Amino acid sequence: MTTDFKPTARSRVKRLHKRAHYDRETIYAILDAGFICHVGYAIDGQPYVTPTAYWREGDHVYWHGSAASRMLRHLEQGVECCLTVTHLDGLVLARSGFHHSLDYRSAMLFGRAHKVSDPDAKRAKLENFVNRIAAGRWDGLRPMNKKELKATTVLGMEIAEASAKVRAAGVVDDEADYALPIWAGVVPVRMVAGPARDDGRLAPGTRRPAHVEGFAHLGLAPE
Amino acid sequence: MTTDFKPTARSRVKRLHKRAHYDRETIYAILDAGFICHVGYAIDGQPYVTPTAYWREGDHVYWHGSAASRMLRHLEQGVECCLTVTHLDGLVLARSGFHHSLDYRSAMLFGRAHKVSDPDAKRAKLENFVNRIAAGRWDGLRPMNKKELKATTVLGMEIAEASAKVRAAGVVDDEADYALPIWAGVVPVRMVAGPARDDGRLAPGTRRPAHVEGFAHLGLAPE
Repeated sequence: MTTDFKPTARSRVKRLHKRAHYDRETIYAILDAGFICHVGYAIDGQPYVTPTAYWREGDHVYWHGSAASRMLRHLEQGVECCLTVTHLDGLVLARSGFHHSLDYRSAMLFGRAHKVSDPDAKRAKLENFVNRIAAGRWDGLRPMNKKELKATTVLGMEIAEASAKVRAAGVVDDEADYALPIWAGVVPVRMVAGPARDDGRLAPGTRRPAHVEGFAHLGLAPE
Repeated sequence: MTTDFKPTARSRVKRLHKRAHYDRETIYAILDAGFICHVGYAIDGQPYVTPTAYWREGDHVYWHGSAASRMLRHLEQGVECCLTVTHLDGLVLARSGFHHSLDYRSAMLFGRAHKVSDPDAKRAKLENFVNRIAAGRWDGLRPMNKKELKATTVLGMEIAEASAKVRAAGVVDDEADYALPIWAGVVPVRMVAGPARDDGRLAPGTRRPAHVEGFAHLGLAPE
């Protein structure tokens, strides 16, 4: 049941329409292939761009941090927000400088965030976040206490106005340039996760759980 | 001759002061270890966050794109801008949910962009950009023509107001939690460049140049 987003004045991709996507499937796939976004907001007209971890649950994205965070304290007021996720896939080296490019996937969401205020709901969101990083990890952790929960703000935003831009074309040169003896090609780029490193202070006998291997669900290829 | 940036109301890191850096050396190192930034700007109060390639020359950063780009057309007016570069280094899995974290390096620049209008200066900037990606590549390319140069906008911004945030601490747990039999550690994360892939339409006899191997200067480890 894929539904498309209706492009709005702010979400419509202005240029290179063939790179634009407004369907939920494409946008969710981009969101689900990463875990760092860049959140944009303006305070008294001054734009800020803050990198932060995010996760998606259904038709919402969530992010969190210290209750003292300037970004979170501003956004919890329900002001306009832009949340962008970008994955780089390749350096495109063409036969002319002009056609040098990047292959990438990016999603841009617009809306207003809301604070998850109910303590149980907030705890459930954080549980989902940790378990998204490493499946089943939450239940094995030292439980979150009231002070920690109070010190943490969780924001959510409905994914209601969104667009994606995807370039996966590789080299696209001017027709006449293909005859030139100039090397062109793509350098593939990706994010990888290396083998987990044990903390130096593990309690004796503590074993590394299976959930710290394999992070493809976060868009991280094995190294 | 490292000089520090003076923290301002907008560039001062509000929380976790031990992660904050205002020295040029740290900030330049973060800028020079990447090539994708997220540019923030506000149009009629609506924030936008656009991913784009950037490069540094001395005490300026530059970025470019189509002269028709909404982002560039807005910023060339000299409005306030925030340019953020983020490198993710590791997933930090602690003994409590609260202390889960990320190791990362990020830099945030504030200022107003200016357009590089002089055609020769603009061409020189684009040459520097291409050569930063792959050393010496520009001179071997089909030369840029006037139409392409006209269709391209290059913006620059002085690096005058900036801060960095760096976390490289790995696991930091509550002292009492170290005794618990809970696995903790770091999953290292990095961006890698794979072997270059030849374009399918190379002219006969075209060899792959040495400059498409080794992208450590862009923060890309070999795969």
